[in-house]
Amino acid sequence: MRGALISALSSPPEVTDLDEPQAGSGEILVSIEAVALNPLDISVGSGRFYGGHPPLPYVPGCEAVGRTDGDALVYLFGEGRGVTAPGFMAERVALPSELPLELPDGVDPALAAAAGIAGVAGWVSVAWKAKVGPGDRVLVLGASGAVGQIAVQAAKLLGAERVVGAGRSAAPGVVTLDDVPDAFGDDGFTVCIDPVWGEPLKRVLGVAARNARIVHVGQSAGPESALRSADVRGKELTITGHSNFAMSAADRNRAYLELLEHLVAGRVVLDLLRYPLDAVAEAWERQSSGPRGKVVVEPPKNA
Amino acid sequence: MRGALISALSSPPEVTDLDEPQAGSGEILVSIEAVALNPLDISVGSGRFYGGHPPLPYVPGCEAVGRTDGDALVYLFGEGRGVTAPGFMAERVALPSELPLELPDGVDPALAAAAGIAGVAGWVSVAWKAKVGPGDRVLVLGASGAVGQIAVQAAKLLGAERVVGAGRSAAPGVVTLDDVPDAFGDDGFTVCIDPVWGEPLKRVLGVAARNARIVHVGQSAGPESALRSADVRGKELTITGHSNFAMSAADRNRAYLELLEHLVAGRVVLDLLRYPLDAVAEAWERQSSGPRGKVVVEPPKNA
Repeated sequence: MRGALISALSSPPEVTDLDEPQAGSGEILVSIEAVALNPLDISVGSGRFYGGHPPLPYVPGCEAVGRTDGDALVYLFGEGRGVTAPGFMAERVALPSELPLELPDGVDPALAAAAGIAGVAGWVSVAWKAKVGPGDRVLVLGASGAVGQIAVQAAKLLGAERVVGAGRSAAPGVVTLDDVPDAFGDDGFTVCIDPVWGEPLKRVLGVAARNARIVHVGQSAGPESALRSADVRGKELTITGHSNFAMSAADRNRAYLELLEHLVAGRVVLDLLRYPLDAVAEAWERQSSGPRGKVVVEPPKNA
Repeated sequence: MRGALISALSSPPEVTDLDEPQAGSGEILVSIEAVALNPLDISVGSGRFYGGHPPLPYVPGCEAVGRTDGDALVYLFGEGRGVTAPGFMAERVALPSELPLELPDGVDPALAAAAGIAGVAGWVSVAWKAKVGPGDRVLVLGASGAVGQIAVQAAKLLGAERVVGAGRSAAPGVVTLDDVPDAFGDDGFTVCIDPVWGEPLKRVLGVAARNARIVHVGQSAGPESALRSADVRGKELTITGHSNFAMSAADRNRAYLELLEHLVAGRVVLDLLRYPLDAVAEAWERQSSGPRGKVVVEPPKNA
């Protein structure tokens, strides 16, 4: 069968022939239909991830959607796949039968794959952690990224009074950090979804309303943020960290299915950037360069 | 009457003769029995406070306990007294009749004054914000200070499984920051009460348990803290700021009376460092140098 291999750190994966997987005891075979790429994949593949990487060469891909022999569509994530163990970027994989999460009928596999890691991070931050509702004025940092795009739409869906997406540079629906104070005027934001940390978060805390809730989900702008006591204390802010990895599998699956329902119904939209398996290197480069959309790799369907 | 005056920024107050206050319409006269000193008084008196200082020369003192003409013991705080308006460091003051909070009979005025600003900050952080209870393992930074001393005792009183006070240098019941990891072993702390911010908070976050709650109440170690995303996100920590000034007067009074009940019953103990009004300059120096106790100035009682 065909699959992708990373042979050297910081080199994109190459498509090659791989041994056909064998399902052992308690395992099942799944035909992969879509693999979503994430910053995590790039981080692992470059050797920058704090948790290391699988022994080289390895098959990348931390999350995927596939079909079981019994024709059930399933979402795949976990057990260190693509992080410490071989991932999902191949035509078929063998898996413990308890790993897959069964999906509703008729879901587009690429959409379902795209809704995973980034989707859960964006949805849980807004809906579960910040508990955004009517009356909230929401600032989403890193609004051009996948987490940010989901967060902006989730906040609107949940009835926020105002939602402002901010990023390094202006884009449709995205303002620059310089424009954040004007966007909130004297009111300030009541919620900030932060996938960036670093200097941007420090800057915008001055625009917070009293008792604002900040949910921190990523560090694309830097691993440290020199936060001011005067901001955190003077306005009695609350900063809460969120990590998908810290969630139980049950909670993560529940959040994922909540979001997927909104995506299937078109209430939340993701720009999918689809690549065939043969173009995995191109997909990898696109993901590495800040894709402004959700990169999904689709292995060929074997009837 | 006698009172204290600050004539130049960064100089201690001097005792002098002041005009007898006159109660205007809607005002009452209160005989001051105890004035507690706080870092805030030193900050205002040195010109370092972000909110400025009263016009020079001014009477310092942000909180006090006194007796009304009707012989009620009352706690006095608020309206910018000692911060933007003349304070309480005098034998008598005139006040709007709605400012004083009436105290239970028989309370030691010095103890009641000492329980105010620092007491509310320590008590609210532990009991209201962190909601410490059985099963919590609590780290208190700045444990030699008044806020820290209250926080340590409040956490024990509320049934915390373990309470560790940490400070710049070891003292009875206080470990150094270097010893914090050992003090919690593999468990980590579930709650941190932080009156320091800056480098110490950054250092100890590595010892946090998953989902630990940090309540931030002061910045004695510095106005900025370069917090790591990996700490905040990886363990899904929550950092909440607390400021007495952000509380409503009703909430602040309620918290104060809760703590005062524990102090009067001896369930929480404060080391009182009592100075007569004539020794106010000495009291001021003691407060400036990190007193390891609660400095209270007692004007002479005029029967």
